[in-house]
Amino acid sequence: MSSNFGKSIHISIFGQSHSEAIGVVIDGLPAGEYIDLEQAQAFMKRRAPGQHKYATPRKEADLVEVVSGLMDGKTCGAPLCAMIQNTNARSKDYTHLIKTPRPGHADYTAIIKYHGFQDYRGGGHFSGRLTAPLCFAGAVCMQILARRNIHIGAHILSIKQIQDQAFDAVHVTADQLHTVTAKEFPVINDAVAVQMQDVIEDARLSQDSVGGIVEAAAVGLPVGLGEPMFDGLESELAAILFAIPAVKGVSFGEGFGAASLFGSENNDPFYYDETGAVKTTTNHHGGSLGGISSGMPLTVKVAFKPTPSISREQQTIGLESKQNETVRVMGRHDPCIVPRAVPCVEAAMAIALLDLYYMQNKG
Amino acid sequence: MSSNFGKSIHISIFGQSHSEAIGVVIDGLPAGEYIDLEQAQAFMKRRAPGQHKYATPRKEADLVEVVSGLMDGKTCGAPLCAMIQNTNARSKDYTHLIKTPRPGHADYTAIIKYHGFQDYRGGGHFSGRLTAPLCFAGAVCMQILARRNIHIGAHILSIKQIQDQAFDAVHVTADQLHTVTAKEFPVINDAVAVQMQDVIEDARLSQDSVGGIVEAAAVGLPVGLGEPMFDGLESELAAILFAIPAVKGVSFGEGFGAASLFGSENNDPFYYDETGAVKTTTNHHGGSLGGISSGMPLTVKVAFKPTPSISREQQTIGLESKQNETVRVMGRHDPCIVPRAVPCVEAAMAIALLDLYYMQNKG
Amino acid sequence: MSSNFGKSIHISIFGQSHSEAIGVVIDGLPAGEYIDLEQAQAFMKRRAPGQHKYATPRKEADLVEVVSGLMDGKTCGAPLCAMIQNTNARSKDYTHLIKTPRPGHADYTAIIKYHGFQDYRGGGHFSGRLTAPLCFAGAVCMQILARRNIHIGAHILSIKQIQDQAFDAVHVTADQLHTVTAKEFPVINDAVAVQMQDVIEDARLSQDSVGGIVEAAAVGLPVGLGEPMFDGLESELAAILFAIPAVKGVSFGEGFGAASLFGSENNDPFYYDETGAVKTTTNHHGGSLGGISSGMPLTVKVAFKPTPSISREQQTIGLESKQNETVRVMGRHDPCIVPRAVPCVEAAMAIALLDLYYMQNKG
Amino acid sequence: MSSNFGKSIHISIFGQSHSEAIGVVIDGLPAGEYIDLEQAQAFMKRRAPGQHKYATPRKEADLVEVVSGLMDGKTCGAPLCAMIQNTNARSKDYTHLIKTPRPGHADYTAIIKYHGFQDYRGGGHFSGRLTAPLCFAGAVCMQILARRNIHIGAHILSIKQIQDQAFDAVHVTADQLHTVTAKEFPVINDAVAVQMQDVIEDARLSQDSVGGIVEAAAVGLPVGLGEPMFDGLESELAAILFAIPAVKGVSFGEGFGAASLFGSENNDPFYYDETGAVKTTTNHHGGSLGGISSGMPLTVKVAFKPTPSISREQQTIGLESKQNETVRVMGRHDPCIVPRAVPCVEAAMAIALLDLYYMQNKG
Repeated sequence: MSSNFGKSIHISIFGQSHSEAIGVVIDGLPAGEYIDLEQAQAFMKRRAPGQHKYATPRKEADLVEVVSGLMDGKTCGAPLCAMIQNTNARSKDYTHLIKTPRPGHADYTAIIKYHGFQDYRGGGHFSGRLTAPLCFAGAVCMQILARRNIHIGAHILSIKQIQDQAFDAVHVTADQLHTVTAKEFPVINDAVAVQMQDVIEDARLSQDSVGGIVEAAAVGLPVGLGEPMFDGLESELAAILFAIPAVKGVSFGEGFGAASLFGSENNDPFYYDETGAVKTTTNHHGGSLGGISSGMPLTVKVAFKPTPSISREQQTIGLESKQNETVRVMGRHDPCIVPRAVPCVEAAMAIALLDLYYMQNKG
Repeated sequence: MSSNFGKSIHISIFGQSHSEAIGVVIDGLPAGEYIDLEQAQAFMKRRAPGQHKYATPRKEADLVEVVSGLMDGKTCGAPLCAMIQNTNARSKDYTHLIKTPRPGHADYTAIIKYHGFQDYRGGGHFSGRLTAPLCFAGAVCMQILARRNIHIGAHILSIKQIQDQAFDAVHVTADQLHTVTAKEFPVINDAVAVQMQDVIEDARLSQDSVGGIVEAAAVGLPVGLGEPMFDGLESELAAILFAIPAVKGVSFGEGFGAASLFGSENNDPFYYDETGAVKTTTNHHGGSLGGISSGMPLTVKVAFKPTPSISREQQTIGLESKQNETVRVMGRHDPCIVPRAVPCVEAAMAIALLDLYYMQNKG
Repeated sequence: MSSNFGKSIHISIFGQSHSEAIGVVIDGLPAGEYIDLEQAQAFMKRRAPGQHKYATPRKEADLVEVVSGLMDGKTCGAPLCAMIQNTNARSKDYTHLIKTPRPGHADYTAIIKYHGFQDYRGGGHFSGRLTAPLCFAGAVCMQILARRNIHIGAHILSIKQIQDQAFDAVHVTADQLHTVTAKEFPVINDAVAVQMQDVIEDARLSQDSVGGIVEAAAVGLPVGLGEPMFDGLESELAAILFAIPAVKGVSFGEGFGAASLFGSENNDPFYYDETGAVKTTTNHHGGSLGGISSGMPLTVKVAFKPTPSISREQQTIGLESKQNETVRVMGRHDPCIVPRAVPCVEAAMAIALLDLYYMQNKG
Repeated sequence: MSSNFGKSIHISIFGQSHSEAIGVVIDGLPAGEYIDLEQAQAFMKRRAPGQHKYATPRKEADLVEVVSGLMDGKTCGAPLCAMIQNTNARSKDYTHLIKTPRPGHADYTAIIKYHGFQDYRGGGHFSGRLTAPLCFAGAVCMQILARRNIHIGAHILSIKQIQDQAFDAVHVTADQLHTVTAKEFPVINDAVAVQMQDVIEDARLSQDSVGGIVEAAAVGLPVGLGEPMFDGLESELAAILFAIPAVKGVSFGEGFGAASLFGSENNDPFYYDETGAVKTTTNHHGGSLGGISSGMPLTVKVAFKPTPSISREQQTIGLESKQNETVRVMGRHDPCIVPRAVPCVEAAMAIALLDLYYMQNKG
């Protein structure tokens, strides 16, 4: 495992789905930053299960307890450690997971990598549950970034074939980001919300699941964040975004679409706006040129595969029988992880951007 | 700058487009590995400019000189340093780049980040020329991986709207990879080569440029490579792939397409093949489950934007005049970078995979 | 702060003297290692205060709770997190520490570094209490090393001018290491124990404190550990040893004494012993040649300054008054930290050696 | 090998004693810093051999060529690479080194670590020659530090039993540092220079060698450098100092001497000086409290063992014969490495201090 991230700040995530607790240590935060724990808890609630019919009915309070790193509510220079007790772990039998690994899950790869010693209960360290401490760390970073006028927001761009409208990559504002993230079902065009929810509900009823795309943006970034060649803005963001379970694609600005444009279409002309600020008339570059922030909104698309947990019978291998067998994934699962993934994308971005912020602002 | 990469091996790239030399230091290689420098040079030739009508007519010999790290042709445990002299740098005036930054380039962001001290000649450290040492490092890693039966290959999946066929993600072999990479214009379906070249030539004639997508695969990976959460297979590969100039999207397996599949379609059933090996009947996961290699072929798509260097007049800012101005990018430029990017993608993958190989194989 | 250590394993320590809890996350441990928590707790007891008259009478149970990373008592590949609740923190007023910083402590430097936001209660993150999670991490690493036949032990080499005899650097065995570390007061020559304790008690009675030297050894190291130039055996060990509070000097083998020897005295001749093993007749090099383990016992000396907490009146600055003032450090303090530092040295060595063990054993 | 160092700046050293070239890549330097290459070359001359009777008569021009990272003489943000051609390598036979490893050298440990593939010619990557690029990197860092009013200097504190006087740890100034480092034989008390040189010459005549201690100081450090727990001032400095060949001990301030002081003696009282600056009346802490710079001079002692290369017959093993054999180290060797080690200590300190400087000055 390598569950630590960052060069100027440092995140270390721990826990398994059924361990006593999960949590995160955040080292290298600037001292003197007030952390609003209620606000962080509210942020985490967006990720928590059990809130909507289109999500798993499991309840996880996900109450975060900060056990170090704060004094009088402010960061004190010492590493901040936040814990979440695992209270809702059903003591059922999970041994089938190591006998008949679930397609699309890390069961099989983890068995081989860890020589059979991995914690298989509920997905262990690979469980989506580990995005809870990621979200907490992101919430902390987001509050610090906000004081530097950097704001992050994301929405559901698509669920299967249903599309929300995209952010206006040129004009998107912090207010617009906050408006969409405040919604229970974060889409820009509310008309598509019901359609998306119907697609999810249909999948659930047919013992299936669906995927989708999250679009995120960050505004207020100063020009100059990103350390090319290898710690450029896109490299750092992609590295942490691919750490979110089920992510299979990450793109910036025009992304894969840029591959079918002419240069004359894709290049974004610079101009001075009325205040003398440097801007681009379009924003196909998505806020990053040469791996460095340009001052235009940073736009990212993140593709999520459909939840691999489906209760249909699936073909798999019998690791004991050495025969081909079948498996059914029972239990309470999200037929679509995308709505709950939205804050995870924001959190991952916040961590990476704060890390880059402090790499740049040295000297 | 942060031009170093890797945790178990360590790559440090140096040089600017017009510095005396460019090169790379590779530390942490296993001792006793024979490095075939002719083979490495042949690999680099695939990236070199000046070879085809669809590429820039500039000639760069890119002769690599290994100045340390080898004894009797084999790695000796000491860092391997390879140098390439910059011989073809025209001593022309590049100061316009800091007066009128080119749209789509890093000129503007670098000016701000480095307070005007960046080397602006020919793109400086941001030049595509810096992929030459990346390719050399990749060639070295590829030879070491090949001895461990791991093979990497890539091809042009698309140029603008023209599509090559994709790798057979389930059955692709090392031989097939070597066959396509041996081609002067690396496509699987040779029939599309001429169409792609026509699209590129048309762009050139109209003072424009085009982008495209590179698809890469790695076969022979043992099960277990990748250190989730944050150094998983996809995180590490994406981080280095986004370090290649002009990359705007990276996806694995079904990638963004997975977002519109049902779970029952996207999940890849496991089975024992006739030899008792564990395989999946399909390979939408692209060889990575939970950030860990599954033993199935690793498949990656990398989106390249059209070359930002176009000789048409473009709108930009006058950093001295403080007025909006126009700029023309003169000189010899690739109307499409994608053909030369193919070996860069392979090289980046080789570096990341060798790094992960040695992270896993400890103890 | 940068409270994380290691390249192939990763240690992240958190907590302050008066935060709710302190603890450690250990990432990158091999899977399948049984961790004997009782043995780890017994190891930690050697560091715990309140046990002897020559140590602070404070009681700290230091009960460790492992909240993640184990399944059925064995490492599972996921990060291991261990927590210790802070139960004995007196709610007294510590604000004098930020008004009149104590000589010899980090009060003043922390105030400046963290702009006054540091947790000053009981020394905060700088408290010797933070060596408790270090010791736990070391106990875990030591158990894993022991299974690879590597054993570590340390003793009090001196308290002020009272000297214990040194390890026999050539012949010291694992049994001898275990014998001395099993003692309540770990000296080789028990005759000096009383003298040392008298010196400590005298210091206490005169409101003063004394320092001393810890000598440690590791036996059973395979030849080849250490990654020169910068992660050599001595570099890595020194880096973690200087992280223990109050350490002011670290040396290997003959150490500073080597500076006054002739080369003909200091060089250790190689020979084949009766079993054909390669040894040296003397061991001035202390088990490290060129930053790489030689197979001979690794010997280290670590100098500890006298505890800066003394109840005598001392001169200091008044940060509010902006006048020179005086301060008395009240409370229960060790007149000599050295006896409790012995397991800390062993723990730090175990962490560094396991990290180097896995750096070497790749490929 | 792990020949790279640093977290906020990054040093990567390459080369072997007889490879075509040796050199260093320095990444992460601030842009816009003028680097005086003549001054750097003059600094390196202090390390170069062949200058004095008490040093090896070998001549090494050690001409440094900067091949990247500068534009118009200033750092440009891109990694700075400096090369030194190896011109004086005698093509003699070194194969005896792998048959009869020299006592006190890394021959044997390298053979085992690198499975016999190490470059054994002239010590390979373990050669003291590799301190040339270290010195160049240090010279660069020193110039940048000097502009921030931080100055570093070192002198020979002892050669065998002959002692120079120590720096005045409280009052030492930048001028005093520059005065001693400008001397051909850097001692404070010139009267001891001849005695030291006699001791060295006597050793040479008797085919032997001697060691000694280097004392270094840094003045002008702001309060706050150092990132405890694990990247504290002492940890970071010790790690890089132990990377210098032949170093066997490192201590700060009173060092090992602190172990025999009372706390009341060793604690340094704070006071406001006439300008209102915070100082300590004594400086036993050597400028570091809690791993953080206190603003007082940083003082370090570094113990060097006697050169292991002596031409007397020594006992060793025959790796081919599998019998005990003898070896004589022929050739031109320093009977004492200490005078040439003085600038190496300064260089290592400069690299570490600049790294810590940029770790601290973020945000």
